[in-house]
Amino acid sequence: MAFERIAVLGCGLIGGSFALGLKKYGFNGEIVGWDREEVLPRARERGAIDRGTADLKEAVGDTDLIYLATPVTLILELLPAVAQSAKPGALITDAGSTKVRICRLAQQVVPEGVHFLGGHPGAGKEAGGIENASADLFAGAKYMLIKEAEEAGEAGEAGEVEGAGETTKEFLEWLGNLGAEPVWLDAETHDWAMAMVSHLPQLLSTALAGMVWDETDEDGLPVSLAGAGFRDMTRLAASPYDIWRDICLTNSENLERALDRMSQALERVRTQLRSKELKEEFERAQRAVALLQSGARRSGDE
Amino acid sequence: MAFERIAVLGCGLIGGSFALGLKKYGFNGEIVGWDREEVLPRARERGAIDRGTADLKEAVGDTDLIYLATPVTLILELLPAVAQSAKPGALITDAGSTKVRICRLAQQVVPEGVHFLGGHPGAGKEAGGIENASADLFAGAKYMLIKEAEEAGEAGEAGEVEGAGETTKEFLEWLGNLGAEPVWLDAETHDWAMAMVSHLPQLLSTALAGMVWDETDEDGLPVSLAGAGFRDMTRLAASPYDIWRDICLTNSENLERALDRMSQALERVRTQLRSKELKEEFERAQRAVALLQSGARRSGDE
Repeated sequence: MAFERIAVLGCGLIGGSFALGLKKYGFNGEIVGWDREEVLPRARERGAIDRGTADLKEAVGDTDLIYLATPVTLILELLPAVAQSAKPGALITDAGSTKVRICRLAQQVVPEGVHFLGGHPGAGKEAGGIENASADLFAGAKYMLIKEAEEAGEAGEAGEVEGAGETTKEFLEWLGNLGAEPVWLDAETHDWAMAMVSHLPQLLSTALAGMVWDETDEDGLPVSLAGAGFRDMTRLAASPYDIWRDICLTNSENLERALDRMSQALERVRTQLRSKELKEEFERAQRAVALLQSGARRSGDE
Repeated sequence: MAFERIAVLGCGLIGGSFALGLKKYGFNGEIVGWDREEVLPRARERGAIDRGTADLKEAVGDTDLIYLATPVTLILELLPAVAQSAKPGALITDAGSTKVRICRLAQQVVPEGVHFLGGHPGAGKEAGGIENASADLFAGAKYMLIKEAEEAGEAGEAGEVEGAGETTKEFLEWLGNLGAEPVWLDAETHDWAMAMVSHLPQLLSTALAGMVWDETDEDGLPVSLAGAGFRDMTRLAASPYDIWRDICLTNSENLERALDRMSQALERVRTQLRSKELKEEFERAQRAVALLQSGARRSGDE
């Protein structure tokens, strides 16, 4: 039994790319888009959706797969109504950047007979929106999928979900068709890991750029003397607040912990400035970079 | 009167690139290289130098221009002997990454009749050494040059040095031939600015990578889930300690100040995680990035 109708709620970069990928890699059913009125015609023009609607019930009812790809706060707002309107056997999945709050809510509001799978595609671009969507955005990228904590450590993580519905299995097949590389973990581990390697780096970049801005005079000094290193370190700082607001709000405890660790690390570096112990800091950092590079080669995500 | 002989002390990436640039853009005199014994044949093979010597006096005597391109600590070690051996009318210039200590020492040890000009090419590559040197490394890059503090604010900064010797003017012409864009500032401003846009970003990257390394488990989590943002933020962390040791040692006060500001900025972000004030942090950061990008277009350094 194959998907006949898929609803994409939020037809931006992620939702649009998922829909375009389905079309490119052979999905023959109907894709219904739900978004703001002005976005829907653009999603239709790009060929991502077959029809658009601003009516949530219409989008979700009689649909095999519901793909929630709005910012996290809106996912949290939509989920109860979506869960109520979903037909038995349907799969609701999301692409939100934080997972604990969403998965906890899903446990409360998704009725018996409807499936839920939390997800987070580790893919993105500097520019969002349907205009930047691409059928191959997920190709070679990790796609994080949420298992319950007690299952997360078990064998058979690689895509086999015990007791999963047919719809879940079919969704995983589609992710494979799109070239995504599934990574199974529990929601708490996900949010902690993202705080460390995604959310903290963003806030560091924002804080660095803002601090240097405060120090910058009318002649543009010192920003005018910045080179490639500063450019790398402030590239994330161009990110729009709107996305990060939701992430900071829904992962604030992990982020506070990560910021505390970072402050301690900076304090340690400060005390080591004049000592040879700084060498150990550099060596530990280089091990992380080496792991990052070997991991990149292994998974081919670069 | 044109340069007949130039000495390059330290034939690595910077010294080698300076020498290769001179050759490519028409210097007809002799270039003498000074470095460790094993480096000199490689510098000759690359065509950067005409002959090499491990004898400092031999390299420096009867030379019109002495280009010091070793790490900062070695510049500080060499400078007194170099200044004593330099012939009257010669120009000693350096390419060290910090300038206060070097320029202060030069004032003490460079005798009457010998000229000194502190410099710092804002050019580099991830990999150092003569093998990575390039005749066009300085093309389109800023080249910071040190004026005395009282002169730094004056008009006529753009390459005109009042009372400069002929050798200094000729050196500036060669920088122009190599495509470098001179930026005049005083040593204190230079070291403060570099602490902000170069040295602090390096230590942030090192501290972030080291901290995440400490958090990483046997399975590679969370590094294994890192994306492009973390990659950007930890690229600098691959830098070798050797270069940074000297920079940290010779710019430690500015760096401590910069690290303090950064800690304050992180603390502010931490308190704003759950509030709308975080939006202002993002907006201020975006202004710095916009300035960086407009400045980059103006100077064409990307």
